[in-house]
Amino acid sequence: MTQTHDDLTELEAQFTEHLQLDADAADLLFREARTANTFSDEPVTDEQVRAIYELVKWAPTSMNNQPLRIVLVRSPEARARLVEHMGGNNKPKTSTAPLVAVLAADDDFHDELPKVFPVFPGARDMFADEEMRRSSATMNATLQIAYFILGVRAAGLAAGPMTGFDADAVTREFFPDGKHRALAVVNIGRPGDGAWFERLPRLDYDEVVTTV
Amino acid sequence: MTQTHDDLTELEAQFTEHLQLDADAADLLFREARTANTFSDEPVTDEQVRAIYELVKWAPTSMNNQPLRIVLVRSPEARARLVEHMGGNNKPKTSTAPLVAVLAADDDFHDELPKVFPVFPGARDMFADEEMRRSSATMNATLQIAYFILGVRAAGLAAGPMTGFDADAVTREFFPDGKHRALAVVNIGRPGDGAWFERLPRLDYDEVVTTV
Repeated sequence: MTQTHDDLTELEAQFTEHLQLDADAADLLFREARTANTFSDEPVTDEQVRAIYELVKWAPTSMNNQPLRIVLVRSPEARARLVEHMGGNNKPKTSTAPLVAVLAADDDFHDELPKVFPVFPGARDMFADEEMRRSSATMNATLQIAYFILGVRAAGLAAGPMTGFDADAVTREFFPDGKHRALAVVNIGRPGDGAWFERLPRLDYDEVVTTV
Repeated sequence: MTQTHDDLTELEAQFTEHLQLDADAADLLFREARTANTFSDEPVTDEQVRAIYELVKWAPTSMNNQPLRIVLVRSPEARARLVEHMGGNNKPKTSTAPLVAVLAADDDFHDELPKVFPVFPGARDMFADEEMRRSSATMNATLQIAYFILGVRAAGLAAGPMTGFDADAVTREFFPDGKHRALAVVNIGRPGDGAWFERLPRLDYDEVVTTV
């Protein structure tokens, strides 16, 4: 009932005529891209991160609210503080990746709405309720985490996104203002030796999609 | 402090050398793609949706858990039931889009883990706690919503993702089993007359990214 990557060619032949995206891009972002578990020593530059951001910033969020905030963990001291709070399996990866980014939601994103959603001057006041604001921040920052992962791949790099860490502790370490929440940590770099586990099966179309 | 789409050319010249993704794909998925507010009459076929799914299914989720479930709302009766619960501004769009999809999280995704994450037989039992399971379902289904939006664009179609609807009511209408939660509704089709609002500004790199 599930498909593995080995079946891709047949599926491609059947459905890719319906894609406008070219095959190289489809492979780079989706079909051949993999979550890396080891990385080479090649550094990830600020210019690469900037290129990723300037691409993925255009992807949509609710009312253009863009709550994602990104902390690039570059100093050895900051790296050590982060690794301490990663889950056991993730510690070696996060210790050795060329670059690690903490991705967080800004719970005060509504303060930016007069600037990023000027078409509706009342937008900021819609988010006076803290719980509703937090919920929107989480959802939209999570959408942006997905865009960011694909942006890393668009730069020809491998991403290693992780949720296995002590999110409260990372939030306290890296966002002491109490207005941001760490949602994911992403290792970034060129894949190293043995970077890939075996490709895991995906659910069939009929297991996911129904029609009413 | 913010950039509009008019500034893209200068930024492109500065940073796109760091992208491996070709310019046509970057434009199709991110830079030129827009949230559509009107649609043409051209139908969206099941084959197009299948092509979208066969592309985006490869994007990563935590432990490959793939909690996203998609309901294609094709019958006029189902469309009417959905439109009733959409926010006022969204009713006309959802009434007229060639295809509307309800995107939901499957809170019982853990039942699929023995199949989709066979490398760790204990995976299903890690999610015995309902609140933790629900949290993982929400986060990972939201990542998959972002992948789906970009997949719609990869098919040369415009997406109109919306969170402005009565989610509890839509969940009750379309998922009476009590094990799924509607997270987003997406209008899908070719853009119609006046499909685009003015492009809204994005946050500057320095407003989003910091380094420690």
